[in-house]
Formats: sequence, C-alpha cells, structure tokens
Amino acid sequence: MTEALNLLDLVRDDLVRVESKMLTIGGGGTYAPLAEAFLALLGSGGKRLRPALALAAYGFFAQPASDKAIAVAAAVETLHNATLVHDDLIDNALVRRGITTLNAVWNKGATVLAGDYLFARAAGFAAETEDVRVVQLFAETLRIIVEGELRQLFSSRQWRQPKDAYYPRIFAKTASLFAAATRSGAILGGSTAEQEQALYDYGHHFGMAFQIVDDILDFAGEEATLGKPVGGDLRQGIMTLPFFYYLQAQPDPTPVIMLLEKGDAGVGEVIASVRASDAIGQALAEARAFTEQAKAALTGLPESPFRVVLRDLTDSTLDRRV
Amino acid sequence: MTEALNLLDLVRDDLVRVESKMLTIGGGGTYAPLAEAFLALLGSGGKRLRPALALAAYGFFAQPASDKAIAVAAAVETLHNATLVHDDLIDNALVRRGITTLNAVWNKGATVLAGDYLFARAAGFAAETEDVRVVQLFAETLRIIVEGELRQLFSSRQWRQPKDAYYPRIFAKTASLFAAATRSGAILGGSTAEQEQALYDYGHHFGMAFQIVDDILDFAGEEATLGKPVGGDLRQGIMTLPFFYYLQAQPDPTPVIMLLEKGDAGVGEVIASVRASDAIGQALAEARAFTEQAKAALTGLPESPFRVVLRDLTDSTLDRRV
Repeated sequence: MTEALNLLDLVRDDLVRVESKMLTIGGGGTYAPLAEAFLALLGSGGKRLRPALALAAYGFFAQPASDKAIAVAAAVETLHNATLVHDDLIDNALVRRGITTLNAVWNKGATVLAGDYLFARAAGFAAETEDVRVVQLFAETLRIIVEGELRQLFSSRQWRQPKDAYYPRIFAKTASLFAAATRSGAILGGSTAEQEQALYDYGHHFGMAFQIVDDILDFAGEEATLGKPVGGDLRQGIMTLPFFYYLQAQPDPTPVIMLLEKGDAGVGEVIASVRASDAIGQALAEARAFTEQAKAALTGLPESPFRVVLRDLTDSTLDRRV
Repeated sequence: MTEALNLLDLVRDDLVRVESKMLTIGGGGTYAPLAEAFLALLGSGGKRLRPALALAAYGFFAQPASDKAIAVAAAVETLHNATLVHDDLIDNALVRRGITTLNAVWNKGATVLAGDYLFARAAGFAAETEDVRVVQLFAETLRIIVEGELRQLFSSRQWRQPKDAYYPRIFAKTASLFAAATRSGAILGGSTAEQEQALYDYGHHFGMAFQIVDDILDFAGEEATLGKPVGGDLRQGIMTLPFFYYLQAQPDPTPVIMLLEKGDAGVGEVIASVRASDAIGQALAEARAFTEQAKAALTGLPESPFRVVLRDLTDSTLDRRV
C-alpha cells in the first residue's frame, strides 16, 4: 500500500518559496544581531501548516502559486511567529520546539520589539497582495487573536468559568488564523463567494479540531514525545476541554478546585485524574465532530488533489501524537 | 494683535471625529477590563499632532474630511499609542504625560498584549481606507519604527558611536510617522505625485525638527514644566544631538565617558555640562535648519489655510517649552 500524498508534499515547492520569502526578514539591511536571531527563530521551522493551508486553498483555483499567494502564505506564518514570540515572553517560556526562545537569550525589551518587528513584516507581506479584503481580514484576525489572549490571561485560574468560554478562546487562538489562511488563499485564487465561505468554514472547523487535539495531548501525551511536562495548561491556570469534561462529571467541583489551589502537588493529582478519566475520550469525540464539519465544508468544492489532502488532513490530525 | 489660527484649531471638528473613532477601541464588545484601560490610555490625550498632520495634508485637496481620512488619522494616532505602550514597558516607565502607564497597573503580559491590540486596531483603521498604498505605507512605517527602537536598544551606552547614527534613529522614532501621516492624507485627498512628495518631505523635515527639540528639552527644559527629571535620555544610555555636539567639542571624549560609566553622580555632572554648553544652541540651529526645509517643501503646494498653519507650526515647534 503506497502512502497517500499529504498536504505538505503537495505544496512542497510553493513552501520553499514561502521559506525564501520569510528569510528576507533576517536578510539585506537588517540590523545584524536582529538578523541572526530571526534566522534562528524562523529556521526552527514548525510544520508550516498555516502557509500550507493558504497555498492549498489557492491551489483549488489557480496554479502554480502566484507571488501574491506566496506573500499571503508568508504573512500567515510570520503573524503566527510574531504571536509566539510575545506568548513565550508572557509565559516566560525558555524553550519551544526544542529550540531556545528569543525570550531566553534576549532581554524583555528586545523580545517585545522582535515580536513587533514580525508583526510589521507580516503586515507588509499581507499588503503585498494588494487586495483590500485580504488586508482587512489580516487586521481583523490579529485583533481576534490578541483579544483572545487577553481574555485567556484575565480568565486564568477562574476555575468556575463555564465550558462555553472555551470555544471562543480556541477560535481566537488557532481557528481564526487557519480560517484566515484558507479564506485568503481562496480570495487570491479567484474563488466564488460560496467557495470562499466553504474554505473559510473548512479552516475554521479544522482549526477547532486541531486545537482540541493539542489540548488533549497536553494531558494525554507522553512527556518524552511532547518534549514538555504534561498538564502545562492547567499548571498555568488555563482550562481546556478535557478539564471541562472532567469537572462536569464531578458531583461537586469544590474538592477539585481546592486541589488546584493547593499548588503543584494538588495540580499534579488533578492532571493524573483527568488523564485517567473519560474526559479525554469525550474531548476527542468533539474534535472528531469538528473534523466532520470540516470535511462537509469541502463537498461543494471542485474535485482536486487539494480536496483529497485537506480531507485526509482532518483525519490525520486526530491521530497525531505531538 | 489677534493670534493666528493654529493647526489644531483648524482641524478641530475633524479631530473630534477621530477621537470618537478611537474610542470605539474600548467600546462595544471589548472585554471590560481592557475597555476601561484603553479608555484611560486613549483619553489621556497628548496633543493629537499626528492625526492633525494627516487631516491638514488631506485638507489641501478636499473638504470636509472623508471617513477614510478620519480612519487614516485614527490609524496614525493608534499606531503611535501602540508604540508608546510597548516603549513604556521596555523603559519600565510608570508615568507618561502625568498619567499612570498601563505598565504600572497591569502585569507585563497584559501590557504586551494591550500594545499588540492597539497595533491590530491601527492596522484595521488603515485597512478601512481601502487604499493599497496607504496600507503598504503603514506596514513599512511600523517596520521602520520598530527597527529603529531595536537599534536604539542595542546601541544604548555605546558612547563612541558616531553622531551620524542619530539621524536615522530620530527618523525612525518620529519623522517616519509624521511623514506617513502627511503622505497618507495627500494620497487620500487625491494629490498629484509631486504634491504627495512635497507633503511627505514636509512631514519628514518637520518630524526631524520636532524630535531634535524634544531631545534639546530633555537637557535644557525645566523639570517642573517637563514633569520629569532632565537628562532622562542620557541616564538611559541614549545619546541625542546636544550630547553629540557636546562630546564633539571635547578635545578627548574619554574623561566624559568615564564620568558616564561612573553611575548617577557622574551622569548628572555630564548633564549639567551639556546644559551649560554651546551644544544646546548648536542643536537648536540644526532643528531650525530642518524647519526651513519643511517650509521649503510647502512652497509648491496650493495656497490655503492649511499651508499657513503648517508653516506656522514649524516656527512654534522651535519655541516650545514642553
């Protein structure tokens, strides 16, 4: 049985162009210490899922990717990296993806500015599309992401918040940018309004599923595979879907909350209980439901290799271990 | 003798519309603690000089200000406030314009995000112009501002840096946004390419003069008027034009640098020497030369009350005490 072509394989050549474009961030006249840091940061990779989504959405309508499609893919990934730089600062994270964060090597001020610089470059890439709707979508998505982070910060350790608070938070954190990526690709490709909506819906629902799986892995993953201790979200006071399901199944939340307020040992005990509970399976079922919605969104789109890989991507995200 | 109409008087009605637009940042669905902080921040005012420049540039070509002109003015001022929020965090400043900074009341993470949120809203306002060139100018100006701040951070306390390093730094810090404001106003007003260039040049040269006067006041101003101790820049290791002139006049810079390295008392001694030296006058002469260039840029523009107030503004900036 030959393995099916996956999304990253299908857009590999375009992604190489996106990488080249992003490397201009640290190139040319860039101030030397800054250039070096950006090259390390942007070279550390990640899976480039977001630009691949933009390129695949574009691929439905036109090929090969135009310079504007490459620009929008670079804009999406650069915006994502900008938010990561500020997140790491806020969380005081010293390592991400096994690579030392900017935050760990630079001082606070330089890290704030490095993130700002990436925002500026992301805005510049978005503006290169010369498409007013794409630019407006970018500005609005940035607003949603940042407002979500602020809400998360202010709602941290609010143990009695309702489960419903979770969904807008993961839309802001992840799904909004996935949806902006697919929608921008569709716009630049010259889609109809219905196709644009379908690709927005795909990105949205797939993004929700993706973040739920991330949140499940934070509890149920293996420390060796994840490269970080399990339960990191709860240790930071952030409530995610597995925890909400776990709490909902308790006759009385108070003893759990008392454990959480007790400090590290108490939190560790709660994490172990969540891992052992049905909450993981319930959260996974919900992620699966979002992938079904994502697949449903694809049905109205033209048959193409891009439709196949986007469809397969939803299933494989449910199986990932990291 | 009646006092001449000044810039802020001439665009007062438009500025009221800009204020209303900016207040939407803290309105509507905005998360409550955030809304309150933004209202305090944006309500604290400042002189609204940057939006007034955009509105005046627009005024040469069309009146009253269109919604897009109001949007660009709001974008300029919001971008300025975003950079101030992050600057205050970087400098650990607790008060600005006599008002407690976000940084002093919120934690580091929330302050980083509040600045990011203002960037997002500024980008959104810029996108409302639906003008690709305005959007590109904004992204590029943000890049210039942030790169300048990074250079300033990395060059802090590099006492032997050349005087020439000063000019690109103040262009990045101040003149780039002044020039973006006037240029955006011209673009939206429907200027010719020559008029757009003239207004860009005006904003650029006036911005250089404005920042030099700021840097002079940091040495030569009165603490009571400024609301902060004199010599703040030098205490932070930032070298400005009066200091460069002072250092240039020394037969040997080494004793001065030794004093600066000695700590507060040494820095205080240097500040007093700069205040008493010819360096202040030399810096002021250079600011005056920039205002002459700014005035020269206006000569090709149509006669109008806007030309009168922009011309007067250059002279009055040389006389300001705060």
